[in-house]
Amino acid sequence: MNIRKYAVEFIGAFFLVFTIGMTVIDPGGAGPLAPLAIASALMVMVYAGGHISGGHYNPAVTLAVMLRGKCPASDVVPYMVAQGVAALAAGMLVLFLKGDRAAAGMIPATVPALLAEFLFTFALCHVVLHVATSKATSGNSFYGLAIGFTVLTGAFAVGGISGGAFNPAVAIGLGVMGLVEWSSLWIHFAAEFAAAIAAAMTFKFLVPGDKD
Amino acid sequence: MNIRKYAVEFIGAFFLVFTIGMTVIDPGGAGPLAPLAIASALMVMVYAGGHISGGHYNPAVTLAVMLRGKCPASDVVPYMVAQGVAALAAGMLVLFLKGDRAAAGMIPATVPALLAEFLFTFALCHVVLHVATSKATSGNSFYGLAIGFTVLTGAFAVGGISGGAFNPAVAIGLGVMGLVEWSSLWIHFAAEFAAAIAAAMTFKFLVPGDKD
Amino acid sequence: MNIRKYAVEFIGAFFLVFTIGMTVIDPGGAGPLAPLAIASALMVMVYAGGHISGGHYNPAVTLAVMLRGKCPASDVVPYMVAQGVAALAAGMLVLFLKGDRAAAGMIPATVPALLAEFLFTFALCHVVLHVATSKATSGNSFYGLAIGFTVLTGAFAVGGISGGAFNPAVAIGLGVMGLVEWSSLWIHFAAEFAAAIAAAMTFKFLVPGDKD
Amino acid sequence: MNIRKYAVEFIGAFFLVFTIGMTVIDPGGAGPLAPLAIASALMVMVYAGGHISGGHYNPAVTLAVMLRGKCPASDVVPYMVAQGVAALAAGMLVLFLKGDRAAAGMIPATVPALLAEFLFTFALCHVVLHVATSKATSGNSFYGLAIGFTVLTGAFAVGGISGGAFNPAVAIGLGVMGLVEWSSLWIHFAAEFAAAIAAAMTFKFLVPGDKD
Repeated sequence: MNIRKYAVEFIGAFFLVFTIGMTVIDPGGAGPLAPLAIASALMVMVYAGGHISGGHYNPAVTLAVMLRGKCPASDVVPYMVAQGVAALAAGMLVLFLKGDRAAAGMIPATVPALLAEFLFTFALCHVVLHVATSKATSGNSFYGLAIGFTVLTGAFAVGGISGGAFNPAVAIGLGVMGLVEWSSLWIHFAAEFAAAIAAAMTFKFLVPGDKD
Repeated sequence: MNIRKYAVEFIGAFFLVFTIGMTVIDPGGAGPLAPLAIASALMVMVYAGGHISGGHYNPAVTLAVMLRGKCPASDVVPYMVAQGVAALAAGMLVLFLKGDRAAAGMIPATVPALLAEFLFTFALCHVVLHVATSKATSGNSFYGLAIGFTVLTGAFAVGGISGGAFNPAVAIGLGVMGLVEWSSLWIHFAAEFAAAIAAAMTFKFLVPGDKD
Repeated sequence: MNIRKYAVEFIGAFFLVFTIGMTVIDPGGAGPLAPLAIASALMVMVYAGGHISGGHYNPAVTLAVMLRGKCPASDVVPYMVAQGVAALAAGMLVLFLKGDRAAAGMIPATVPALLAEFLFTFALCHVVLHVATSKATSGNSFYGLAIGFTVLTGAFAVGGISGGAFNPAVAIGLGVMGLVEWSSLWIHFAAEFAAAIAAAMTFKFLVPGDKD
Repeated sequence: MNIRKYAVEFIGAFFLVFTIGMTVIDPGGAGPLAPLAIASALMVMVYAGGHISGGHYNPAVTLAVMLRGKCPASDVVPYMVAQGVAALAAGMLVLFLKGDRAAAGMIPATVPALLAEFLFTFALCHVVLHVATSKATSGNSFYGLAIGFTVLTGAFAVGGISGGAFNPAVAIGLGVMGLVEWSSLWIHFAAEFAAAIAAAMTFKFLVPGDKD
């Protein structure tokens, strides 16, 4: 029954976005250690839910996994809805706990932000496809560590340039929590879905014998 | 002989609470890195003792695992006693090493603290049930990493709201060490045990074929 | 088709050098946490690409693995070219995103820098050979963690002495980004390739029965 | 040929003590992140050398593993000599790179330091015995992570009380580098070897069926 998979995607995306908001927004945030908390949230939810839903928690990952042939097309929209609704719910809970934010959200410079989101969403989807859907690595115990800590790398490397979402559901969460202006979110959506497509194509080129 | 399991639960809960006290209380604490030390304490004790007792070190986890059908009901009370006595012993040793504390303990705001403890104790029990008791992930090498770093995530995200216990034995330790006022500990007990029940019910819904 | 292996080496070395530049150069860097981001970049790329190319991303590692007998001699030059070109590309992208740097690059003291680069490149190649090419550890899930976090150790221990490259392609990237003066890069090349040879010889001495 | 095992013990203990000195001594140290670098040094060396020598790098661990029946008695003295000589060599190299230290070494308070070293050396030997010598966990991929991060936990928890050695070879290194006064090193030796004996006895009690 697919509702189970959608519920797992909701739980994982909820805790990911909730952790982002609670650790990034001051006071009470995690300061420079926020990327470690965020990467850990993703890692533990991938380990907990991967065996049920694949543990995407990210519409770009869902798109990449579908294109690579390991997620039924009929699951794509419900996965994305579950992830997006979870981001909305988590964002609103963060606002309740942190209080409304007076500060304006980030308006990133367009070209650098497109590059930043493209590169690390590509890296994230590349890592996911190779550690969680590849025949050659099947049965490994490192998939959650690799996936989570790709986000840590990207958050430290380009968080200041684009907000460091690498995930359209997270981008929605950043919008709800006032961390990025809504008018800039198209940057995330465009770059992240493009990166997902590029990573899926790259996977097919790199591992041509690994069919669906 | 079950005394071995209870001894392992004592050792693990002791080092967890001892590490919390020594890294959270200044001077001589670990400052913003305390959650990393605490998560590591839990991780290494789960890896060391999991094969004997399950490596709970947490009455809420014991309750969740029992409800999911992987801990005999007759072990529940002795496990909880071992965990609680360990927390008392560790807390008193911390007071001996750090000296008595003049500072008053935290009195968290009730509703935010209930929410915070519920959410991350749910996450912790969810992760434990899926990585350490599920058929689909059995034989994995990541269970300690996933369990320990769920606590890191919660400590960074909501430590400032509730104290970040996610564990009734730890809550007792926080009381002994004067980090949280005794009058507020009911918040932890109520939210944590409720979260354990919710996580066990969620597990049964998500993985209906994974019987005891 | 070997082009696939070379493409994987390009991707991994690109993200490694890109992460180094983005986290080490201020403003917008990761401050004292840069080694964690860099180690994670290497770790995740090793996990993602190891099953295709071996996941070297480092000419010294390629030399060591070739000498140990697990990389065809005909792959050595193309691997090193892919790694070097990736470093150039990543370095130039960092300059584009960070803006040109006014600060002069590091000119390390020769003898300490030779020692530092030799020791930790030896450690890195030693770890790679034993966790990623040894019969006794084959099938493990820890190879990326071990390889990545060797670089973390070296970066914290001797980064201030030599720049902490342990990798000739990274050294080129440090040159492009103006972090180390070009006139000092011979130190890296000499020490790193010497360390690779020493680690391969040590491996053959330590595990004589583990033939190619 | 056992010389191979002794060489591996030398390499691992050398990099462990070298990393401690380089990250703990200012200027050029790792500040509050030193325990992460030190834990990683131990972790990667355990992963690299465990399949040859067991990856002790610590006379207390060698004693505990011998008492538990997984290290031949004839190896105990050569292992400890290799570990001690490595600590001397690493300590002297640190002094060469850092310059002589004017600061006086730590003279810890005796009873707290005995307790601190006993407790975390017990934890370390407990973890080693259960993750690296137990039938029930054999074949796991987490042993290096668990062993390394036990030291991280102890360093954050009690490093300020005793220096955080948990390892007689490291204690010698701390003496050489002037971090702890020689007159205080008996505290480390006494507490650490006692803890090793206690951990071995505890292991035999906890897992009586796991014979040599």
